[in-house]
Parts: sequence; C-alpha cells; structure tokens
Amino acid sequence: MLCPLLNDMYQITMTYGYWKTKKHEQHAVFDLFIRKNPFGGEFTVFAGLSEALCFISDFHFSTSDLEFVRTKLPNAEEEFFEWLSKLSCEKIKVYAPKEGTIMFPLVPFLRIEGPLAAAQLLETPLLCLINFASLIATNAARHRIAASSAGHKVTLIEFGTRRAQGPDGAISASRYSYIGGFDGTSNLLAGKLFGIKTVGTMAHSFVTAFQPEEQLLTTTLAFKDQSDQTLDLLAESMKNRKELGFSSASDGELKAFVAYAICYPATFLVLVDTYNTLGSGVPNFISVALGLHKAGYKALGIRLDSGDLAYLSNQSRKLFREIGNSKGIEYFKDFEIIASNDLNESTISSLNQQGHSITSFGVGTHLVTCQSQPALGGVYKLVELEGLPRIKLSEEMSKVPIPGLKHPYRLLGDQTSLLDLLILPSQPSDPPPQPGQKILCHHPFYRQKRCHVIPKEVQPLHELVFDGKIVNPIPSIEETRALVQEQLKVFRPDHLRLLNPTPYKVSISHTLFTYFDELWSQNAPIPEIS
Amino acid sequence: MLCPLLNDMYQITMTYGYWKTKKHEQHAVFDLFIRKNPFGGEFTVFAGLSEALCFISDFHFSTSDLEFVRTKLPNAEEEFFEWLSKLSCEKIKVYAPKEGTIMFPLVPFLRIEGPLAAAQLLETPLLCLINFASLIATNAARHRIAASSAGHKVTLIEFGTRRAQGPDGAISASRYSYIGGFDGTSNLLAGKLFGIKTVGTMAHSFVTAFQPEEQLLTTTLAFKDQSDQTLDLLAESMKNRKELGFSSASDGELKAFVAYAICYPATFLVLVDTYNTLGSGVPNFISVALGLHKAGYKALGIRLDSGDLAYLSNQSRKLFREIGNSKGIEYFKDFEIIASNDLNESTISSLNQQGHSITSFGVGTHLVTCQSQPALGGVYKLVELEGLPRIKLSEEMSKVPIPGLKHPYRLLGDQTSLLDLLILPSQPSDPPPQPGQKILCHHPFYRQKRCHVIPKEVQPLHELVFDGKIVNPIPSIEETRALVQEQLKVFRPDHLRLLNPTPYKVSISHTLFTYFDELWSQNAPIPEIS
Repeated sequence: MLCPLLNDMYQITMTYGYWKTKKHEQHAVFDLFIRKNPFGGEFTVFAGLSEALCFISDFHFSTSDLEFVRTKLPNAEEEFFEWLSKLSCEKIKVYAPKEGTIMFPLVPFLRIEGPLAAAQLLETPLLCLINFASLIATNAARHRIAASSAGHKVTLIEFGTRRAQGPDGAISASRYSYIGGFDGTSNLLAGKLFGIKTVGTMAHSFVTAFQPEEQLLTTTLAFKDQSDQTLDLLAESMKNRKELGFSSASDGELKAFVAYAICYPATFLVLVDTYNTLGSGVPNFISVALGLHKAGYKALGIRLDSGDLAYLSNQSRKLFREIGNSKGIEYFKDFEIIASNDLNESTISSLNQQGHSITSFGVGTHLVTCQSQPALGGVYKLVELEGLPRIKLSEEMSKVPIPGLKHPYRLLGDQTSLLDLLILPSQPSDPPPQPGQKILCHHPFYRQKRCHVIPKEVQPLHELVFDGKIVNPIPSIEETRALVQEQLKVFRPDHLRLLNPTPYKVSISHTLFTYFDELWSQNAPIPEIS
Repeated sequence: MLCPLLNDMYQITMTYGYWKTKKHEQHAVFDLFIRKNPFGGEFTVFAGLSEALCFISDFHFSTSDLEFVRTKLPNAEEEFFEWLSKLSCEKIKVYAPKEGTIMFPLVPFLRIEGPLAAAQLLETPLLCLINFASLIATNAARHRIAASSAGHKVTLIEFGTRRAQGPDGAISASRYSYIGGFDGTSNLLAGKLFGIKTVGTMAHSFVTAFQPEEQLLTTTLAFKDQSDQTLDLLAESMKNRKELGFSSASDGELKAFVAYAICYPATFLVLVDTYNTLGSGVPNFISVALGLHKAGYKALGIRLDSGDLAYLSNQSRKLFREIGNSKGIEYFKDFEIIASNDLNESTISSLNQQGHSITSFGVGTHLVTCQSQPALGGVYKLVELEGLPRIKLSEEMSKVPIPGLKHPYRLLGDQTSLLDLLILPSQPSDPPPQPGQKILCHHPFYRQKRCHVIPKEVQPLHELVFDGKIVNPIPSIEETRALVQEQLKVFRPDHLRLLNPTPYKVSISHTLFTYFDELWSQNAPIPEIS
C-alpha cells in the first residue's frame, strides 16, 4: 500500500505545474502540525515517525506507477516523466521530535525541507501515516490514564481486530495502542510483526460447541509433577460442583471448560458468560480450577464479556476468596478477571470510581477506531520558499499557519514543562532560549496574551531525523512505548486530565510574533464594505 | 496484511482445543450478521465479499506463521502443527447475497459451512473485511441520497486519504465509497488498482508558492486550433482583470493560476480561497478563463474549500453568469464548482435545502472514517454443529443469535420489497415461501408481532459463492456499484430516509419461531431469586 501513488491526485497535477514552471527544485519548508488535540484533551502523542521515515527513504515511482500517472496527465511533456522516474528523497531533510514525544497544537510534528516538488509529493502519505498513528497512540495513552485512575492498576489489552478499519487499520491500531501504553493485543499478526504480547482464550462458540451430552474424547489429566499419576478431570470437576452446591450450571459449558483445561492446564482462563455468569460460568470455572489444583496446576482466571462488570467481578472475587479460604488455597483470591464489552476511557474511569475486581480490561472498537474522534486533523503547510516566508490566509484566524522556518523548544521548570516556544532562527534578534534567562512569550494569535518565562531547562524539540537517508537507528517499539510514559510524567496532571483539562501553552517569540503580524497585514487586503 | 494470523489469538487457542478433542472436523454452520444498521439508518449495503472470498481461497499458514504460532502454544502436540500446516478452506462452503445487496439486521450476510476449526479461524478476518467495507459502502450510499435531495444532482468525490485510518483504510475507503455511489476519488492508488476515476487540481501550497513579484518562466500559450498563433496569457489575464475592475485580487495568485493554465489549458480548475474567495480567487479565475477563451480553450471551474459554501457558490455563479452574458460566452454560466471543507451527509442535505450552485462535493474525513459511527458491529456466531442447533444466551434478548441453518428470502409486492424472511430448511414444515401464497411471518423476538404476507415475488437472498474455491467470477467494481443503486430502488423511500427512517421488517417463519423459542427455554435456566 505504501507507494508514492498513495496520494491525492492534486499532488501530481501540482508537481507537473512546479516542474513546468521550473520551480520544482526551489528550496521549500513544509510544517506538519495539528490545530487541536484530539478527544477533547490537551495533549497528543506523536507517533508514526518510523513508518514515515521508511516511506520517505524508499520513495520512488515504479514503472507501473509512471504508466498510470501518464494516463492521468495525457498532455504533459515526456521529459517530465523522465524526471519523475528518477525522483527520490535524496535531497529531503526531515526534523522531528522522537517518536513518542508528547506534542501540542501548532508545534510542528515534522519539518520537511528540500526541493518543492519532492516535498509536496510527501504531503498526503505523511499525513496518512502520522495522523492515524498519533491518534491511536493518544487514545491508548488516555485509556492508560483512565485505567490507572482511583488507585487502580489494571492491565490493558487491545481486542479490536474485527472492528478495525480494514486489515491495516487493525495492525496499526495494535502497534500504536501498544506504543501509547497498552500491555498486549489479541492480534496475532501484530504479535508476529512487532513482538507485542498476545492474549487470547476462547469465544462463546467454543463453549456452545460442547453439548450437555457431549462425550469428551479424553478427560484424563496427568499430574503436573508426577506424570505417572492421572486424574479424571471431568469426574473430579463434577464432584467439586456437586459438593459446592452449584446446581444450575450448564453441563455443556463444564465439558467445554474441561476440554480446554486438558489443552491448557497451566494457563486455564475461560469465558464465563455464555449461559449465565454467576449461575453457571463462574461455578463451572471454580469446579475445574479445583480439579486442576488437585493435579498440581494453578488456574489463571476468567473473562467477562457482558453484564454489569463491576458487580459480576466483585461477586466472582468474593466467591473465589470464600472458596479459596474454605479449601485453604491461597491463590484463588487472586484469579485474573479480564473484562470486555464495549469499554472506553469513560466506562473504564467510571468502573474504577465505583470499584470492581477486574485485573485486565480488553478494549476493542472504541480504541481501534477512536470512536469518539476517528480522525486527527493534521495538516501540511508550505511555510517558506527560497528563504521567503509563505502565508495562507483564512477567514478563521486560528487556521492561518505560522509562516517561516521555525525552531521549537520546550521550556521546563522543576522537572515540569512550562510551555513550548517557537522561534525564528533566521533572525539575529531571535536567539535560542537559554536556561535562567527571562523570555517574553506571545500567544500566536492574541496580542494581549503574553508571559515572561525563566526556564530552568531548555530542550530543543526537533532533531534531524532524515537527510537523504534515515539518520539514526529506528528505536524499538519498547523504547518508544517507554518514552511515552516517561514524557507523560513531565507535564502537570491538569494538562493530562481526561475531562476539562487545562490547555498547555504554545507560544512564539517576540520576533516571530512581529514577523507573523507584519506578513499577515501585508497579505490580507482590507475589504471595502459598501 | 491478509494472512491467517490477522486473527484474534483465541481463534488459535480454540483451534487447538477443537483439534485435541477431535471436534475440528465436525460440521459447523456459522452466521455472519449485524444486529443494528449503522448511522441511525435502516439499511446496510453488503460489501467486502470479493476480498473475503479471495482471502478464504488463499487461506493457509506459511512456515513463518507456523513458527510464530508454535511460540504461542508451547505445549501443543507436534501433530497439531503438522495438521495446521496443511489446513486450507477446501472443505468450506460460503453462501451470501451478491456484493452490493441491501441488507438488514439478523439476516446473515454470510453463512459459512464446513469443518469447525477451519470455519472458526475465519471469524476475525471475515469480520475485519466485511464490517468496514459494508460500513463505508453504506456511508457512501447515504451521502449519495443526501446529495440527490431537494432536486439536486451533485457529483460526489472522495477526498479522504490523509485522514483515513492508515494506508489500507484509505484504499478501502476509496474502493467502497465508489461502490456505495461516489463518482470518483482523489486517491491515485485507488485509481490505479480499481480503475476509479481520479480527480485533483491544486492545494493552497501551489498558490502560495507564487509571489506577487514572481517571474514566470513562460507566460505564452499557443492557440488551441492554430498552434502557430500564441497569446501572452499573463498579460491577457492582467488586462481582463483591470477591465473588469477587480482591484483587490492577489498578483501571486494570478500568477499561480496562469502557470497552472499553461500546464492544463483544457482542464483549468483552480482553488480560489487562498487569500479571499470573492475578492481575489474568483476574479483571478475569471480573468484567466477569459484569456483561455481567447486562445480557444474552455476553463472548467473552481474549487471552494472554506467559508459559507452556499453563499460563495451562489455569488460565484452569479458572477460567471453576468460576465458570460456581457462577453457573450455561453459556457461561463456552467462552470464547475467543487466544494469541500468538512462535509458530511447532514451538511450536504442542509446545503441542498437552502440552495447553492455547487456541482461537486468533495467529502473527506466524515466519509472515510465514518465519523458518526466508525465501526459496524457485525458478529460471527456458531448456529449449528453436526446438524444440531447451537444457542448462546445473553441478558439482552436481542443479542441472542437465531439458532440453526437458515435460508433467507426477500418477499416483494409490486416491485417493492415487503420484508425478509428466514426459514429452517431442515424442517419439512418449513417449505420455501411461494409467490401468491399467504405466509405467517413472526418478529424474531416478540411473540405478539406477526403479520400475514402474500408476496408477488420471492427472491432467495443467498447463493453458493464458495465451495472449496470461488464459484462465480468476481463481478467488476462497476457492476457492484450499479447493483447498489438498483437495489436502493426496490425499497420504500421511508426505509432509506436518512433521519428517523421506518424500520424494514425482518421476520422468521412460524416453524423457526417455535424452534427458537423451545431451544431458548431449554437452555435458559429459570433463576431462583431469594
């Protein structure tokens, strides 16, 4: 899928326009940035960089791509196609923060420098790669924050493959959910490709595949540490169930659990809501878990996929504890309880508030499709050409991109980030900010919104990541995932809060403010109203 | 991306469970269906079948897939992996409607028959392929209905690549938007892969790349029919602009338009909102269009990407008409006006209601990510095993799948569909419905909701589409697209209405109702409340 034709057609029509007017080699600077954080929040996790760099690195038009483009530009000159066939990104430079950095509106995620035509052709694919990756990583980070609320510490598993926006939507969702803070996925391909921990037990179909009168092929389980000794797990489980007085539990379900336990005696975890969670599923699980215990195995736990998850998990935990106590089995009280069923950050927060006994949340649709906001509105704007700033006006003030080649810095106080600042390195009056120095910071649009900052620490946000080729080794997915969690510690909790967070300040230097203001006034005609 | 590992891990753990208990070859029937139509509507376009059939046809585990699975099931027997390495879908049968058929909740989109393990392993990939394709196709069909409202006839172009959920999300969106009724896409790769018409002109960056003082390399245009005669298009356009009294238009924009016109004199269509739509963009377009006219070319039109699209399009049309009249140029009044900017089915409906002069809508984010509902909740349920019905209970009545192997029929009156009916072909008391015959139709869940229907026509909804291999040639994307529009004519407009539509009836035969009712009662324990 990743080829230069994964592109809006206008990129090609414009490219011919640039080539034909001999502007294609002019030195351009494009910024890729967002105007608003997603999900009503006040932060965004920057992700997708490694995929973007691989794309830029491999950028070239294949013979069949060129043949196709030719049909779309029937009147273009032959030399254009010759030039296009040799086009690569060898003259492109990309500046960016590390993948996993927490970012904010107006601060460029990427700065692309290089020949106008090549840089223009990167617009659509880069947006496609960065927008969704950053959206998912942010969504996952928010779910992580929700799962850690009210003193809880719950594992998060991504369960969304079947509801994702196509196969690659599923793979991307698994990959960037993990980067954003999830602990695992149900998606095997993501496990294979990225080494993410995969998790899975059984669906309802496994349970319903076993009938009450089912004749199991084998019900014999060898003891864990004495393989010469065996147990009839079905008979043992039936006996346990009778003893405990579980009279309404389904026999088909018990047989499904026994069959599963014989396959996975050391990792026994089953879905308990096929018929009735507390009336059948949990009793059957306990009956088999006691059998496994006799054979020297420790069962793992249960999965709940419907009903009142707080109530059902608490009732299950209570039963585990009671039976564990009465039988003197310590680990029974600690069984895993995985809960799924249309969870999202607000249901997770609410469950944590009201109290529950869940150890893992499985999150599907809401996570992988970003149901509450399924697209990030990243844009890619020409800000400088041949050393001159470029500006695009708009009726909406906040939609006017900040012109010029800018350097972004993060200004920190005591280990806490204060604000981000953009400066104009081309101007001698705009030196990089220094720790201990008082800096006048302007709101990009409102003249009256200003502040003085004396940072204790100053971090440049961008580094050169591509210079005709990828500059640094691509970090591992684990490193990027760790960076996200590290980064989140640098910001005040009120910026990261899920509901009604405080906006984080993004500001511009006095020099940049004046420059922006003058350029805007020059280019905006004063309309005559009659 | 499309390989058997694009799967939830539990499919593999269950598969080993089936294999180990020697149930893997038992004859299973799975239904893939939805419980609710998307977008608050009352219909769904069935799509994704051809991709699904290709996937089933190619289904096998590669050596590296098997190696990966081995790491996930460290204690599974070696023979299992040998069996898995040879697994294919040669014993699988799939029944489905034609891709593009309008479908409703509870009526299976697919019925999969075959060995339990193979059929189980298809669950996640089939859901991933069918859910998103059907969602997008339905979304596109709804946009088509909106665009045709209030007597309008507007072209629809998909513009969403940059906001889609990953590269494949973009490609799928382009493909299934077209099937659902769009006329074209900006996505070149979709054009290359599927032959969809691609559309594109220029972005703001092209306009801002040209400065007021820009020296264009060439401003000379040869006449269309007399190539020995040339025109200085810039001088001519400047002259036109002056004559028409357009004093506030940007010189940089005019130069960008002239450069573009020299590249594309026969297909001149430009973006007019970079600086000011009515004060600069439209005047510059008209000035160049008059120049092109002199050289024998007809300009195509403009694109609006911001502001009040109804007002700006009407004002532009008025100006085109006035200047066309005053210059005696007939086609000026018919210029294309493409509008984009966060459009969706309700803004399109509203624009059509209030009146506008737009000829094409470009729809991006809302279409490709299905912003108002980014996932379709299709499910895949085991309904029969070894000839015996399977049932999965739920606290929510409407979530209990209808058990047994069912045949779906569509019952029509005078060229209008009356309802869909599911029957139980295994029961002699449940013959296929016949035209002219009175049929008792039950609501699947409410005993009191019944009706008698005497259909004029009866259409079986399913046909055998896969029997170890793909049965029929895959229809072209054009055929599927045409089928959607044909199908939409068969339903009453109140079922298709975008807001508060009337639900379409899906019913079950009396035999199936009784069968379902008995099975449910048998399997649902009567809880004791104390």
